[in-house]
Amino acid sequence: MADETTSPEVEAETDEQAYQLDRRAISAILYALDVEDREQLVELLEPLHAADIADLLEQINPFDRRRLILLYDREFDGEILSELDEVIREEVISILNPDVLADAVREMDSDDVVDLLEDLEETQHDAILGALEDSDRVAVQRSLTYPEYSAGRLMQTEVVMAPEHWSVGEAIDYLRSQENLPEQFYHVILVDPRMHPVGNVTLGKIMASRRETPLRELTESMFQVIPVTQYEGEVAYAFNQYHLISAPVVDEEGRLIGMITIDDAMAVLDEEHEEDILRLAGVGEESSLSDRVLETTRQRLPWLAVNLVTAVLASLVIAQFEAAIASLVALAVLMPIVASMGGNAGTQSLTVAVRALATKDLTGANVWRVLRREVLVGLINGLIFALVMGLVGLLWFGSLHLGYVIAAAMVINLVVAGLAGTGIPVVLQRIGVDPALASGAFVTTVTDIVGFLAFLGLAAMVLL
Amino acid sequence: MADETTSPEVEAETDEQAYQLDRRAISAILYALDVEDREQLVELLEPLHAADIADLLEQINPFDRRRLILLYDREFDGEILSELDEVIREEVISILNPDVLADAVREMDSDDVVDLLEDLEETQHDAILGALEDSDRVAVQRSLTYPEYSAGRLMQTEVVMAPEHWSVGEAIDYLRSQENLPEQFYHVILVDPRMHPVGNVTLGKIMASRRETPLRELTESMFQVIPVTQYEGEVAYAFNQYHLISAPVVDEEGRLIGMITIDDAMAVLDEEHEEDILRLAGVGEESSLSDRVLETTRQRLPWLAVNLVTAVLASLVIAQFEAAIASLVALAVLMPIVASMGGNAGTQSLTVAVRALATKDLTGANVWRVLRREVLVGLINGLIFALVMGLVGLLWFGSLHLGYVIAAAMVINLVVAGLAGTGIPVVLQRIGVDPALASGAFVTTVTDIVGFLAFLGLAAMVLL
Repeated sequence: MADETTSPEVEAETDEQAYQLDRRAISAILYALDVEDREQLVELLEPLHAADIADLLEQINPFDRRRLILLYDREFDGEILSELDEVIREEVISILNPDVLADAVREMDSDDVVDLLEDLEETQHDAILGALEDSDRVAVQRSLTYPEYSAGRLMQTEVVMAPEHWSVGEAIDYLRSQENLPEQFYHVILVDPRMHPVGNVTLGKIMASRRETPLRELTESMFQVIPVTQYEGEVAYAFNQYHLISAPVVDEEGRLIGMITIDDAMAVLDEEHEEDILRLAGVGEESSLSDRVLETTRQRLPWLAVNLVTAVLASLVIAQFEAAIASLVALAVLMPIVASMGGNAGTQSLTVAVRALATKDLTGANVWRVLRREVLVGLINGLIFALVMGLVGLLWFGSLHLGYVIAAAMVINLVVAGLAGTGIPVVLQRIGVDPALASGAFVTTVTDIVGFLAFLGLAAMVLL
Repeated sequence: MADETTSPEVEAETDEQAYQLDRRAISAILYALDVEDREQLVELLEPLHAADIADLLEQINPFDRRRLILLYDREFDGEILSELDEVIREEVISILNPDVLADAVREMDSDDVVDLLEDLEETQHDAILGALEDSDRVAVQRSLTYPEYSAGRLMQTEVVMAPEHWSVGEAIDYLRSQENLPEQFYHVILVDPRMHPVGNVTLGKIMASRRETPLRELTESMFQVIPVTQYEGEVAYAFNQYHLISAPVVDEEGRLIGMITIDDAMAVLDEEHEEDILRLAGVGEESSLSDRVLETTRQRLPWLAVNLVTAVLASLVIAQFEAAIASLVALAVLMPIVASMGGNAGTQSLTVAVRALATKDLTGANVWRVLRREVLVGLINGLIFALVMGLVGLLWFGSLHLGYVIAAAMVINLVVAGLAGTGIPVVLQRIGVDPALASGAFVTTVTDIVGFLAFLGLAAMVLL
């Protein structure tokens, strides 16, 4: 690879601050709150995107947040609400003047209202639904009948479609005659007489073609139909894998009932990654910086409890060798090294495996090859670090035998780490458990126990 | 939150297999290779998307891969090449018949050719560039002058633009008269007389508006201009934060020179996440399942070496207490528990902090509040597990004092874990080091050393 030694930071401008609210703007806004200068506040917030205002609200403290919302009052719009973290959103909704809330909700797209309702207490639902116009309320309520995290919750019901036998001219005349086209649309979906989607035509192709061209001749080669009950993570995968821009959603009979666009799929992909990364670290998946102390404590406790059980199991192994440790304290000094190296190597293998499972790169077709590779990698790194640790053992404690023992234990534990780090996520996935969630605990249990057992067991045999 | 206890798996159809190549299809393809039935192979691969053929090539073994490429021969197209992992891509390029390679490259979009060249040895560049038509070669070579991982490498140079004073009718007439519109475009970019982009108009708005409407009245509210040298990660952030579909790219003078579309931004977002998750686990960031054993070993070794240093440091701490351990072996049995709990709690805090830094949710405006929260969470979880471990110490070893010691060490280490897990990534980011890459080593060093020091130190003071 020609460029593998170059780092991105050196070459492109990282410019970490590019899209960050600058400190001076925040200070000016807080000052406007202090002096209760509404005009100034509105002027300062006016140029900001709703997503940035939402970030600002998340980052200031609860006291300032309350003051800002009350002072900003009627200017507060629905888009800010959609962009907020759910914890802060609940807080904001409880502070907002009911009239302002009703106006804000009325401005929102129906899929954003659905998203809003999902995170709210049932008691707050009625206030939100009551604020909607009848037709919007029906759309929102229909959407809520689809399973959570399904394509049905993600889709918009406004679609632009045309019969498959139409020509470009017919499509253009139809589009021009429509009063209520969606805000954002990029394709016309072709449907057969039974309302089954059969192809997508981009607006660009329609504009660039002669009026008599049949739409059917202009369809995109990338065309994927999404079942309404499909899990949103799979939807995001399909968009990413097949480079889709929008895709029709169909009901069980295959009839067109909505459409998903890539920006929604991108948001889901982002959430899925966030969930994976947090699950791998044993953090409750719904956590955010806005969570309160007790909520955060509650989210993190279960994983720490699992870890405690793991650690106690490892201690039970150590306890079997109390006599050996008492007669050679060097064992106590060195034993955490073997366990720790195994834990790290296991985490490496497991992270690669979990990612590969998520991206469908690790399948039945290559699982044995990957497993063999991980074991070989463990063996080679094990041999390298066995040599290093053997020397450390020899030089530090002046015992050749101690060196042999720690070296052998290192090789054993790193091979086991490769095996467990790959095998455990694969098995968990097969039995229907999310490997990101549970693999870590299992793998470190294995590497801790094998690490202590191999080192102390060999030591008891060889040295005593 | 109305639904926090429900799991997505229960509600939407996960259908893990939805977009996975099924085993039977793979078997049929491998059988076609065995009997060298080219017609059958072409027929089996024909319905597959290029991305799926690329996945197949990645998952089968090198022997089958070679046979497939040679048998598929002329049908092999450029899109498959763009979708392949870089390791496998190099292998495939070396196997492909030069004529087939030239044809494949000629079919590719210029940004995909750039992507291809980035990963190839210099010696292979000429063959690829030579295959291109002159105009494409110039575009590719210009793109390569922009920094790696910059917006300039990501953009396509084909843009559809219009003077800002045009009306809808003028734009439509212009589009209809163009022979060579890009394959995919969704907006017309408005430019001022100095070629500075001033707004985006969607094709949908153009189609739905009267001919005399000025384009300026139809511009999108979301409009973000990307500097050509901006780091691609920041570009992806902007698309995700502001829900952009496409954005104009400008040179240093602010002149329009290209355009980036959301599908490319989505791919970058995916890669950035992958990089973060692998860096957090201490795996070389460019690793993939297709890497060979030695390459993988080399990628993982540095992090294991860092961990070895960390572990030896922790052992040096333990060695200071050899006398204490010799007189009370229970200390050796229990000490890994305190270190392990601290390591886990630290990893939780650090993962949340690294993610929040990446999404710009953790800033100067809230860092002290977040730090205070993490310390409090550490304190509460510390107290809970102190109670549990105090009881374990008491019941297992029958010593109330041992219980006190382990309880106190637990509280200290979990508070330190919260502090280090948040503080270290923040400091690393400030001094310009990627927190995802380096935080883990620092945090576990801290929690290991503090864990052993607090437990053994207190024990030496209280128990002996």
